[in-house]
Amino acid sequence: MPPCNAGEVVVEPRHDAYGQLLLAALEGHEVFEIVERDDGFISASAMGPKLYLAPFRRWPSHHRRAMRYAKGRVLDVGAGAGRVSLHLQDRGQDVVAIDNSPGAIAVCRRRGVREARVLAFDAIDESLGTFNTIVLFGNNFGLFGTPTKAKQLLRRLHRMTSNDARIIVESRDVERRGGADAPWHRRYRERNIARGRIPGQIRIRVRFRDVIGPWMNYPMVSPDQLRGILAGTRWYLAHVFDSDDSYVAIIEKTGG
Amino acid sequence: MPPCNAGEVVVEPRHDAYGQLLLAALEGHEVFEIVERDDGFISASAMGPKLYLAPFRRWPSHHRRAMRYAKGRVLDVGAGAGRVSLHLQDRGQDVVAIDNSPGAIAVCRRRGVREARVLAFDAIDESLGTFNTIVLFGNNFGLFGTPTKAKQLLRRLHRMTSNDARIIVESRDVERRGGADAPWHRRYRERNIARGRIPGQIRIRVRFRDVIGPWMNYPMVSPDQLRGILAGTRWYLAHVFDSDDSYVAIIEKTGG
Repeated sequence: MPPCNAGEVVVEPRHDAYGQLLLAALEGHEVFEIVERDDGFISASAMGPKLYLAPFRRWPSHHRRAMRYAKGRVLDVGAGAGRVSLHLQDRGQDVVAIDNSPGAIAVCRRRGVREARVLAFDAIDESLGTFNTIVLFGNNFGLFGTPTKAKQLLRRLHRMTSNDARIIVESRDVERRGGADAPWHRRYRERNIARGRIPGQIRIRVRFRDVIGPWMNYPMVSPDQLRGILAGTRWYLAHVFDSDDSYVAIIEKTGG
Repeated sequence: MPPCNAGEVVVEPRHDAYGQLLLAALEGHEVFEIVERDDGFISASAMGPKLYLAPFRRWPSHHRRAMRYAKGRVLDVGAGAGRVSLHLQDRGQDVVAIDNSPGAIAVCRRRGVREARVLAFDAIDESLGTFNTIVLFGNNFGLFGTPTKAKQLLRRLHRMTSNDARIIVESRDVERRGGADAPWHRRYRERNIARGRIPGQIRIRVRFRDVIGPWMNYPMVSPDQLRGILAGTRWYLAHVFDSDDSYVAIIEKTGG
């Protein structure tokens, strides 16, 4: 399977490492999220899987605060185990959860998400109806792909949303987050910059047990880089909820 | 770097993932031991690094009980972070710690192991002097390599040890341990058997941050398989200390 942008295609079940991880976590297994970067860097986290299944009161505070902006009918993109969808459903809102991982959508359904679809972000269109809010949590800015592709998707989202719509998207400033000074991260950023890419243009894959996920382009941007991507799309960066690790951006439509 | 038997060569610093892991753990970082098997199976453990640095009172009980057999002058093979060597030193015994990981030996020295050498198990010989006990903890039966090579090393150890000497070695019965029924482990054992190997003939490598360890043949044997390997070597299996996960074998010299 060639590398692709994270939001481009539906993951085949035999490569659905992320979905298998969520299913195992749902079944009560102690699981670690192992993520491999294309320079050989690898990490394991017990926090990721815990957060994916966490109820609202256990979310990081910048996630909770950002949820105040999730109004009306919501598209939850890269819904994972459905924590955002379940929270908004509980608040009485109409939510459509999509994920390109069949395992993730199986978990969403088993946890009670009423409308959950196996769908790549790239495949969304007006047939889903009109939304008031688009949520991309869990560093899911990465699903926008390269800056060029992000601009195209932002224009499509403009057509699929109400005039007062918001995009709530999480990303990381890879030059400022904790651990940024580590030589293995610095080298990776420098390689990206040397190739004319943004420093946070990472390519990663998830591994779980004997399942190897597809390589995905999964970029991370700083708030300033995000402003640059938004330029000309009729969206603008209205608020930032920051944390030591990631930030959540509230993006709104420009008047024009 | 081609695959090799785990005990065969000294690891180059740029491939010393295991040693880097131990150094980071010693420095207080929260680390996970990520181990990749050659079929793509991968696992992460927080327990391993904790055990490597654990004081005697925190060891699993089968490890503690087996230490009663560690008499006299001891060779601690695959010493890791030196927990066995430090315990025996504290008891007043003379210990030589060896490991093929330069990082591991650096950690041993920093923790106070008085005689610690970067040395592959295969490279030991009579120049080290005579030992009363050989310890291979932490599944380090794997350092013996294939059954054929194990027999050769056992004969060499016979020459390097006193008449009342013991080998204290840890391994796993991969067909009985917890998780043995999982399809990814079953498939791997079946592949080994189809190739005429023992079911526990695994090939693994350690990964830590951006450091990728060398592929190592690191077999695991049941007590019965161990008895078969000992046949004809003038060593015999005298005791087994069992646990849910691994067992420690006490191996003694036959009278003949």
